Amino acid sequence: MALRGFGSDNHSGIHPDILSEMLSANHGHEPSYGTDSFSETAIEIFRNFFGPKADVYFVYNGTAANVLCLRAGLKRHESCLVTDQSHLNMDECAAPEFFAGKLIPATSINGKFQLEQLQSYLIRKGDQHVSPIKMISLTQPTELGTCYTIEEIRKITEWAHQNNIYVHIDGARLTNALHFLKTTYQKMLVETGADIISLGGTKNGLGFGEAVVILNPELKKDFKFIRKQSAQLPSKTRFISSQFMGYFKNDLYLKIAEHSHQLALKLAHDLTTIPEVQITQPVESNSVFAIIPKAWIGPLRKKYFFYVWNEATFECRLMLSWDSTPQDVAGFIEAIQEIKLNS
Amino acid sequence: MALRGFGSDNHSGIHPDILSEMLSANHGHEPSYGTDSFSETAIEIFRNFFGPKADVYFVYNGTAANVLCLRAGLKRHESCLVTDQSHLNMDECAAPEFFAGKLIPATSINGKFQLEQLQSYLIRKGDQHVSPIKMISLTQPTELGTCYTIEEIRKITEWAHQNNIYVHIDGARLTNALHFLKTTYQKMLVETGADIISLGGTKNGLGFGEAVVILNPELKKDFKFIRKQSAQLPSKTRFISSQFMGYFKNDLYLKIAEHSHQLALKLAHDLTTIPEVQITQPVESNSVFAIIPKAWIGPLRKKYFFYVWNEATFECRLMLSWDSTPQDVAGFIEAIQEIKLNS
Amino acid sequence: MALRGFGSDNHSGIHPDILSEMLSANHGHEPSYGTDSFSETAIEIFRNFFGPKADVYFVYNGTAANVLCLRAGLKRHESCLVTDQSHLNMDECAAPEFFAGKLIPATSINGKFQLEQLQSYLIRKGDQHVSPIKMISLTQPTELGTCYTIEEIRKITEWAHQNNIYVHIDGARLTNALHFLKTTYQKMLVETGADIISLGGTKNGLGFGEAVVILNPELKKDFKFIRKQSAQLPSKTRFISSQFMGYFKNDLYLKIAEHSHQLALKLAHDLTTIPEVQITQPVESNSVFAIIPKAWIGPLRKKYFFYVWNEATFECRLMLSWDSTPQDVAGFIEAIQEIKLNS
Amino acid sequence: MALRGFGSDNHSGIHPDILSEMLSANHGHEPSYGTDSFSETAIEIFRNFFGPKADVYFVYNGTAANVLCLRAGLKRHESCLVTDQSHLNMDECAAPEFFAGKLIPATSINGKFQLEQLQSYLIRKGDQHVSPIKMISLTQPTELGTCYTIEEIRKITEWAHQNNIYVHIDGARLTNALHFLKTTYQKMLVETGADIISLGGTKNGLGFGEAVVILNPELKKDFKFIRKQSAQLPSKTRFISSQFMGYFKNDLYLKIAEHSHQLALKLAHDLTTIPEVQITQPVESNSVFAIIPKAWIGPLRKKYFFYVWNEATFECRLMLSWDSTPQDVAGFIEAIQEIKLNS
Repeated sequence: MALRGFGSDNHSGIHPDILSEMLSANHGHEPSYGTDSFSETAIEIFRNFFGPKADVYFVYNGTAANVLCLRAGLKRHESCLVTDQSHLNMDECAAPEFFAGKLIPATSINGKFQLEQLQSYLIRKGDQHVSPIKMISLTQPTELGTCYTIEEIRKITEWAHQNNIYVHIDGARLTNALHFLKTTYQKMLVETGADIISLGGTKNGLGFGEAVVILNPELKKDFKFIRKQSAQLPSKTRFISSQFMGYFKNDLYLKIAEHSHQLALKLAHDLTTIPEVQITQPVESNSVFAIIPKAWIGPLRKKYFFYVWNEATFECRLMLSWDSTPQDVAGFIEAIQEIKLNS
Repeated sequence: MALRGFGSDNHSGIHPDILSEMLSANHGHEPSYGTDSFSETAIEIFRNFFGPKADVYFVYNGTAANVLCLRAGLKRHESCLVTDQSHLNMDECAAPEFFAGKLIPATSINGKFQLEQLQSYLIRKGDQHVSPIKMISLTQPTELGTCYTIEEIRKITEWAHQNNIYVHIDGARLTNALHFLKTTYQKMLVETGADIISLGGTKNGLGFGEAVVILNPELKKDFKFIRKQSAQLPSKTRFISSQFMGYFKNDLYLKIAEHSHQLALKLAHDLTTIPEVQITQPVESNSVFAIIPKAWIGPLRKKYFFYVWNEATFECRLMLSWDSTPQDVAGFIEAIQEIKLNS
Repeated sequence: MALRGFGSDNHSGIHPDILSEMLSANHGHEPSYGTDSFSETAIEIFRNFFGPKADVYFVYNGTAANVLCLRAGLKRHESCLVTDQSHLNMDECAAPEFFAGKLIPATSINGKFQLEQLQSYLIRKGDQHVSPIKMISLTQPTELGTCYTIEEIRKITEWAHQNNIYVHIDGARLTNALHFLKTTYQKMLVETGADIISLGGTKNGLGFGEAVVILNPELKKDFKFIRKQSAQLPSKTRFISSQFMGYFKNDLYLKIAEHSHQLALKLAHDLTTIPEVQITQPVESNSVFAIIPKAWIGPLRKKYFFYVWNEATFECRLMLSWDSTPQDVAGFIEAIQEIKLNS
Repeated sequence: MALRGFGSDNHSGIHPDILSEMLSANHGHEPSYGTDSFSETAIEIFRNFFGPKADVYFVYNGTAANVLCLRAGLKRHESCLVTDQSHLNMDECAAPEFFAGKLIPATSINGKFQLEQLQSYLIRKGDQHVSPIKMISLTQPTELGTCYTIEEIRKITEWAHQNNIYVHIDGARLTNALHFLKTTYQKMLVETGADIISLGGTKNGLGFGEAVVILNPELKKDFKFIRKQSAQLPSKTRFISSQFMGYFKNDLYLKIAEHSHQLALKLAHDLTTIPEVQITQPVESNSVFAIIPKAWIGPLRKKYFFYVWNEATFECRLMLSWDSTPQDVAGFIEAIQEIKLNS
């Protein structure tokens, strides 16, 4: 077994309650390719959240959920507006360009688009030499752990729709934002006008599996073919859908978000007692971003693994997960203090 | 729980011994994206079969394994020779063309290429108007449940290499061929000269997960990027690799092949007692192909689901799985006799 | 200067009357990218033929005209039905798959689709594993020089539209069919229901340049972006549009078709006097297909270049052009008789 | 005939000496698809400039030359480093992403890369989540009319090759740089180590046609197929190659560059006499960039068309061409003075 740490919420395994539902699905024969009874049940659960007209498609991973959402909304000559910090732009090995179209990276603050700048990206709209922007992708929570407020989402969505642009929500850790904003999927996304959503599972306690939720009917039409052609149609779909059944049962999804957010707040709080460490982002989900003295990072990572987010500033990312514990947090603080003493 | 039947080997769940290994992997933190200890162990097992220089990459499903193999070997202007009956040509919603390149469908007998015709597809080689054939994809066992002999594989591979063509093995049910030919992966694929292999898991008892095995060093170089860009890099890879550990432990992979082949032989044998039914393909893996009187198909499918393979001839496919039972076979024969009596 | 012959109608240069119009366009400044006055005039001429709602886009070559038409009508997961003999399938180096989607090659007779077989390609329509056929591409005249009758076009188009399929006309030598059928573009294509047309220039006397004519409004919307992204937006467009002005002026387009068809008929007629030579296709445009004794082909090609169309049967293609002459035909017959005498 | 102006060098027609050579090519039959005698002659001329091992391919337009160069050097998961101002990034409607791969836009000064920043784009090289940078594209002269010095090209090329990165030269107006630097293609590009070059024709007096010059043997291998599949193989190639014969004959290429540069210098000089106008870029090729008072732009463009380059600052681009005249320059200055008087 490897070292515990704060590397990523995908270093954790499967949450026992999610696993339990998955095991319940492992009996007898079921039709394949999404037509099984577990998938039907899981989709109904999603419709309770997102309304009866929502279309739901299970796919394997977060890259797939995101690039298939883009592919659903973009023709090949069209572009998606993203932030310069976004996962789509920085960490997907050009998968968006492969599956969908061009990305236009916009400058961001705390990982968020700046509403007042958006219009400037549309200056040459209609010019045949310029790839038209047809989608904007918001990461919620952002790569830096911050959350758009409902009002911010509404304003961006209004701007987008006024300009004939679809709104994608990249929600690898979407429930963390739900929990932080003390709201519902209905209020945060349906009422604000989001068109298509990547709702993450793997980083929230599933072993694998994400859901694409489509609210705008224009984006539904071809999605089953898009998923299949993109090699993302799971044959034994029941083993994804049953995990989501576990994730949503007894409000587990909110409990996981609460758990990891509380630990993040605790970690951030305790780090503020160490003056050499500087918290850089508001703690609005399950991560803490902090500049840590360069000399401390090496020895610290040997005890608790984490990533240096910005190689220039030594801003580090500490990610809390469903299986992170108060002991992990206390141990980390202890370790950092020990290193400080010895330095 | 849905009806038992002979629809597909992906209608079955996860084999208990495979599940057991997967559950053993569900402890603590592990690095993500293929760098976990379970993946390292599983890759060593593959190397015991395919030699120490084999590269192994886990992906989510069979479509992905196949199209990523093609992408590894083909530039976008190049083509892959497939049989007209192949899954790549018939059942992948143009995924090969999306991920890799053009398919050239060749006529086939019993699902197999005809060696003596292959050369005719190279007539215009070098002509800039013609997409060069750079790969040939053999399905083993074929879509019709037949197996290439080792000698046939060797001859096709020799022909391919003489013509600067890579050999891909589409092995969604590869171990069934291994069992039928009473051979080893080493003899069937390494010594015959295969370049890149899709080794199936999902249809053989895994919940999800396939392996790409790369033998030819020329095809290894970019595969990690190809997998990532194709949205097939699993974050919690341990839940695929551990399943393969279960699949190979105590020769389970061979036992599953033996089990499903024996039941297929039994089913075919018992069907020959019904003169109206005509077995159409040699039973060389875990499927039986048979022409069943049209009027019987409807009522029969209500008791045991299966697919009509050829809508013109009413050739049907009956697929046996790791969880198929002698009772299933007996029940099917009984059902068909009952329908015959009543007709 | 190279040898005269019957290799292809693109071995000829620019017709003097077409060149003359092109030279007239070479004065002063004109806006670029299709907004010049010559392009506006040329488009009006096309609208006289195809109706006032036709959209017209000039592109550089025939490959481009065809694959852009496919791209206009196909989403990436969709397919185009073509004949097995079609240029799209045989001679475009997988450009259709690169720009648009999968090709489904249908068996053909005399280069034409067989209407009664078309329905069989739609068997699995709606199945997510199968790339939906969304376009059918008719070559008029076909690769074998034959012409669909207006009634055949109407029937195929009706079938297509009943099945929600667009009709593309690959018309690299379209006017030859117009002339053969003694009809108009309006009757042959607009009234029969064609959706999008590649209207060839280069093989009919232009130096370069083809026109895409879009009749179905659904296919117009994005075409300017598709053309630009596909690297087919000509900057000095006037040098294509002015050539088409020359092509249509004083019925030159029909005169060229008449000239080359008459010579083809003469050549076919004279070849029938040589019993060893067998005409294989009806002469319905500007080509003659004939099986020529194998031993004669080498020496004959040294005097008059032409292509062996079928390497198995030694069916040869003799192509007549705007600049072919009765002397060319007579010389060819003479040459063949001389070779016969000496053999 | 449209208004004369400074909109673009592609608003001009064909230079008479270039046209003359093109007309000389319009006799008799020539083999098609690049195998004609004119193309052979033209390629020899290029080899006199670029060395005997240079491969030369004619294509239709500048977009094509650029994206085919990128496609030659990039696998689909790889990226090309470009400046944020580059034509590839700003004006190609996502054609680079369609044909080749992802673009990484780097900040620039006067349209040029900043050498000291290049290394920062390679930080995560080797990480499978990051698309590897495999090519850098230098525009020479840049979009802002400035020229890299030979020393700058050498340093960038050295950096690139040390990092296993190919160097592409986007040279839509390449000879203008040659003339400004008083150098040769050999010294500016071959000796500095450029790998592949787009050498423009259309903006320098041709009616259409560009050349791709490949110096690095690794990039040559598949180019004929890449060109064909990209719909850029001209059938009557002689009408491009003969134009290049005219372009290079009697040093016409240098004379055109000299002519347009001198006029640009004259225009810039005369504009400095108008204090309200501010020249923004060094005049190192055939364009002048200047901030013109907003109120003047409308009336001025009615007399002499030009583009506003930067809608925020009202920096305008005035482009000189082979057919620009001293009268055009004088007329423009007169017009601006008149507008000033009346304002």
